[in-house]
Amino acid sequence: MVVDSRDRVRAAAVKLFADKGFHGTGIRDLAQAAKLSSASLYHYMGTKEELLADIMRESLERLLAAAALATEGVEDPRLRLGKLVALHVITHASQPSETRVVDNEVHALSPAAKRTIVGLRDSYELLWSEVIDAGIAAGVFHTGQPAVTRLALLEMCSGVARWYSPRGTLTLDQLAAHYAELVMRALGCLDVGEQPDLKHCRTLVSQVWSVRI
Amino acid sequence: MVVDSRDRVRAAAVKLFADKGFHGTGIRDLAQAAKLSSASLYHYMGTKEELLADIMRESLERLLAAAALATEGVEDPRLRLGKLVALHVITHASQPSETRVVDNEVHALSPAAKRTIVGLRDSYELLWSEVIDAGIAAGVFHTGQPAVTRLALLEMCSGVARWYSPRGTLTLDQLAAHYAELVMRALGCLDVGEQPDLKHCRTLVSQVWSVRI
Repeated sequence: MVVDSRDRVRAAAVKLFADKGFHGTGIRDLAQAAKLSSASLYHYMGTKEELLADIMRESLERLLAAAALATEGVEDPRLRLGKLVALHVITHASQPSETRVVDNEVHALSPAAKRTIVGLRDSYELLWSEVIDAGIAAGVFHTGQPAVTRLALLEMCSGVARWYSPRGTLTLDQLAAHYAELVMRALGCLDVGEQPDLKHCRTLVSQVWSVRI
Repeated sequence: MVVDSRDRVRAAAVKLFADKGFHGTGIRDLAQAAKLSSASLYHYMGTKEELLADIMRESLERLLAAAALATEGVEDPRLRLGKLVALHVITHASQPSETRVVDNEVHALSPAAKRTIVGLRDSYELLWSEVIDAGIAAGVFHTGQPAVTRLALLEMCSGVARWYSPRGTLTLDQLAAHYAELVMRALGCLDVGEQPDLKHCRTLVSQVWSVRI
């Protein structure tokens, strides 16, 4: 695969920001990892802050795009949430560096970039809120604290970016199915109804990230 | 309260490591935050790496100490786990900087320090594994993937360090009770039995951390 210098800089930044944090990543680290001189690096990027905001924006837009594709026309809140969980878990397990940057480095953004990124994150979390509220209204989900439950379940699902290894015993589909079960149980949903098509969820994640998983 | 310079350095390090990461924290930042000169800073600390390892070791020892005190003599796996969840959530919500350093900065440790810290973390996670296994054996918990479930629930509970605010609507006791309910449900436990004494859990966390919460 031919990778141009711009892609190399971005891939190096994702890895370094995820592993060492934005503040822990120097311009020299970036240049070295992208196999460029510090002087020529600026030809392929704006500021380090812009690079961070770009990586985060693109990751969140991909999460939002996959969620929109997967849930279009799906009415049952259990199936909608099952699909959101599967996409979230598959994305965090297969793109751990990108998603860890989104989850860990918001504090490093400039105020203007933070508004954009937090806005996108809020749009994404709203999809979860809406489906949890819809499930409560339909009598299939049960929780006295819908907002806290949403935060707890999102943290649980995002956590796979910290520990999942494709070399372990669980496939992505098994992982996603297990998390969907944990989420339904946590919401007091005993009759889970139709299960999300995990192969289709994986395909959607593949498409929006342009990767084979 | 009189705080000596050593305590000031440590408090500054906890805050900076949590907010900017270990690699993002310079010696100058530490000196400034502790109101010391860079030269005199070394009088109150070893290397930055030693300071990080010390903070992590002490936090994990406190988690372990509180867990041992809370679960001593408690046989019922539901009550044991309920207490572990309450302690974990109260600790992460009330000591968010310390626990975020433990959860996020293991990668920054030297190999020798990493062995010690990962060993302590493993001891702590073993308490969760054992009680989940005991609950499965007793027929009160139900999961086909105990190890994955343990990781998922720990990530969920640790996540409060990222978002809980004491200025919000939930008290620590309400937060702990809600998480205990989520955990029991996720484990398929419908009859939860005796509930943990949350005030006692809060007192234990206060004692091992020497703070008022």
